[in-house]
Amino acid sequence: MSADPAGRESATPASRELLAARAYLSRVAEPPAAALARWVAEVGPVAAAQGVRRGAVPEPVARETSARRTVDRAAAALAAADDVGARLLVPEHGDWPHESFAAFAASGVDELAPPLALWVRGPGRLAELSEQAVAVVGARAATGYGTHLAGELGAGMGDRGFTVVSGAAIGIDGAAHRGALAADGATVAVLACGVDRSYPVAHEVLLQRIAGSGLVVSEYPPGCVPGRHRFLVRNRLIAGLAAGTVVVEAGLRSGARRTAADAMALGRLVMAVPGPVTSGLSAGCHRLIRDGALLVTRTEDVLEAAGRIGMHLLDEPVSDVERPTDELGRTGSMVHDALPSRAARPTRWLAMEAGVQIGAVRAALVDLERRGLAEHRDGSWRRRAAPGKG
Amino acid sequence: MSADPAGRESATPASRELLAARAYLSRVAEPPAAALARWVAEVGPVAAAQGVRRGAVPEPVARETSARRTVDRAAAALAAADDVGARLLVPEHGDWPHESFAAFAASGVDELAPPLALWVRGPGRLAELSEQAVAVVGARAATGYGTHLAGELGAGMGDRGFTVVSGAAIGIDGAAHRGALAADGATVAVLACGVDRSYPVAHEVLLQRIAGSGLVVSEYPPGCVPGRHRFLVRNRLIAGLAAGTVVVEAGLRSGARRTAADAMALGRLVMAVPGPVTSGLSAGCHRLIRDGALLVTRTEDVLEAAGRIGMHLLDEPVSDVERPTDELGRTGSMVHDALPSRAARPTRWLAMEAGVQIGAVRAALVDLERRGLAEHRDGSWRRRAAPGKG
Repeated sequence: MSADPAGRESATPASRELLAARAYLSRVAEPPAAALARWVAEVGPVAAAQGVRRGAVPEPVARETSARRTVDRAAAALAAADDVGARLLVPEHGDWPHESFAAFAASGVDELAPPLALWVRGPGRLAELSEQAVAVVGARAATGYGTHLAGELGAGMGDRGFTVVSGAAIGIDGAAHRGALAADGATVAVLACGVDRSYPVAHEVLLQRIAGSGLVVSEYPPGCVPGRHRFLVRNRLIAGLAAGTVVVEAGLRSGARRTAADAMALGRLVMAVPGPVTSGLSAGCHRLIRDGALLVTRTEDVLEAAGRIGMHLLDEPVSDVERPTDELGRTGSMVHDALPSRAARPTRWLAMEAGVQIGAVRAALVDLERRGLAEHRDGSWRRRAAPGKG
Repeated sequence: MSADPAGRESATPASRELLAARAYLSRVAEPPAAALARWVAEVGPVAAAQGVRRGAVPEPVARETSARRTVDRAAAALAAADDVGARLLVPEHGDWPHESFAAFAASGVDELAPPLALWVRGPGRLAELSEQAVAVVGARAATGYGTHLAGELGAGMGDRGFTVVSGAAIGIDGAAHRGALAADGATVAVLACGVDRSYPVAHEVLLQRIAGSGLVVSEYPPGCVPGRHRFLVRNRLIAGLAAGTVVVEAGLRSGARRTAADAMALGRLVMAVPGPVTSGLSAGCHRLIRDGALLVTRTEDVLEAAGRIGMHLLDEPVSDVERPTDELGRTGSMVHDALPSRAARPTRWLAMEAGVQIGAVRAALVDLERRGLAEHRDGSWRRRAAPGKG
C-alpha cells in the first residue's frame, strides 16, 4: 500500500485533507452536479472545497452548492464510514474506475455528471471489478420467470468471471446478485442511500453478503436516506460501471428503462430479455428492443455482445433436433419427396414425379440410399423410414 | 367479365389455349422453375409450351422440363379444377397480383422464381386481396400462447381490412386464418398440394370456410400431394403475397423461418413476436429479431410497420398507470424527495436537504402544492399523499 507516482497502479491511500475535501464536495451538491464536477476537475478538490466553503465559485457552481455550502459533515461522514467498515473512494485512488467513468464527462450530458467520490463497503476493488462487468437490472415486482432468468444470468456471468452490477432492489436486482454469489462470482451493488443502510430491509442479509465478498457502493454518505430522485441518479452509476446493461423485466415506465437510457447515452451496450407479450413486465423490454436494444436470451448472448467472444464463451452449440432430411439439397429433397413409402417405383417414374432429370435422380437415389433414406429392389425405389424419425 | 385491352383491369377470362399452355407449363417443371419462367416471359406461354413439348428449348429450360415434357395433364387438371369449383389464374388475368409478384423476378434468386400460374378456389380476387396483406406464420406444434396471439393478430388485421395470408397448417397458421374469419376479414391460404385436397385433414372445414369467403391458392394442380420440398417452395408465395410476414412461434429449425428468409430476400418486412426465452418455440422468433426482424407485440405494431399508420391505426394509447410524480422535473422530484411525510419543515431546511437553491425550492413547492403533492402550515412544508397513490 505504498504511494505510487502514477497514483493508479495500487490502492494508494489518499491524504486526510483530500478525503475530507472530496467528502465535503460530494455532499455539498446533490448529485449529479455537472458544474461542480467540471470545476473540481479544473482546480482540484482541495482548492474547490475551499472555494465552495467561502462562496467564491463560478455562478453555475454556486447554483449547485449554495444551499448546503455552510454545512460540512465530511469528518462525521468519514467517521461513520469507519464505524461500519466502509471507506471513501476518490479519483486520486488506484481503485477509482477511471476507464469506466470516462464516459460520464465524455457524454456532455449534465445529468450524467461523474461522481465526485464514492462510499464503498467490501473487499472488492472497483477498478478491477468494473474491468469485465455487466449490469443486470429490472422490475421490483418481477415475475417468477424474470427472477429465474436474472438468477441464471447472474450465475452464468459469475461463472465466467464477469462482475454482476445491480441496484440491490427487490425482484430482478436481488436475483441477479444472488445468482452471482451462488456461482462464487463477483457482484457490486450500487445504492441510492448510505452504504451503512439496509435498503431494502428485506435485503439486509444479501447486502451483508455482497459487502462480504464484492462491493456495496454509493454516492451518498453514510446515514443518507434513499429517494425517488436518488434512485434515478444512482442508475447512471450502474450503467457506467458496466460494459453493458441487461434489462430482464421492466414495465413501460420503470427505473430499469432509465438505466438503459443512461447506458445508451454513455455509449454502453443495452440488452433486453424478451418475455410473453401478454406480460406487462416484459413490455418495457420489448419497447427497448424495438428501440434498438439487443435481444438476449442467455448468458452466451450477453457475453458475445460484450465483445469477449472466444475468451469466455463455452463451446455450447444450440441444442436442436437434427433430422436426417435436413442435409438434403434441393434435388435430393425433391426426389425424397417423390419416393413412395410402400410400392417401389422405377427411376423414370420418380423423375417424372419429382420433375428432375433422370441422371440427377439416379445420383440423388445413390445419395439417399447411402443416408439410409431410400431402398431399392429389382430396379425400383421406395422411401425408407429415416433412422430416429420413426 | 368482358375482354379488356389492358388485360389487367378486370377478371378477364383467358383463352382456352392460353390456360392449357399455362397449366401444362406450371406442371412440366417442378417449381420454382427459374429458367422456364424467364423463357415464358420472353416468348410467351403458348410458344413456350409448344417448344417444351417438342424439346426445342434452351439448355437450362431443358434441364427443368425434360423429365415431364411428354406428359400433358393440362386438360385433365383444368377439368378437375372445374369439378371442385376451382380455376386457373394466369398472369394474363386481371386478378393476377403483378405488383406483389414483381419482387420474384427482381430478386434474381432462382429459388424465388415466380409461379407460372396459380390454381385458386374461392370468391376472392387475388390482386385485390394482396393489396393490403400481411402473412402470419409459425410452428405447427404451437403453444396456447402462440395460437392465442396468432388468433388475436389475425382478428386484429381482419378488423382493419388487412388480408391475412398463411399456409393453413395446424398451429399458428390455422389460428391466424380463424382469427381473420372470426373478424369477417379476408384470408388467403396457400397450399403445398392441390386446392382440391384437405391438407391437413384436420383443417378440412377451415379450408372450406376460407374457400367460401377468401381464397385457397396453390401452384400445384388438383390431385397433387404435398411434400417437404413443396412446403418450402410454397412459403415463397406466402411471403410474396404479403407486404410483411409475422412469425408468431417458431423453433430454430422451422418452415416459418424459411418464409421469413424468403420475405427478406423479396424485400418484404419481417416481423416476429417474442415469447418466453424458456420456450423452444420462441427461439426461432428471438433468432429472427436478433438477425434484424422487427419485434412486434400487437396488431398496431404490425400495421404501423406495414406503413399504414394513420389510415388503419386506432387511437389506442398504451395502457399504463400514471403516477402523480411522473411529471415532476428534476428539481421538483428532488424537492419532493426531501419533503418529510410527518413533521413539516421550513423551506431553508428543504433547500439543504435537497441540495437545491432556496428560490428554486420555493418555486417547486408552489408547483407541488398545486399538484396536491405538498402542503404547508405556518411556513413549513410536508409531503401530502398523492391522490390515487394511497
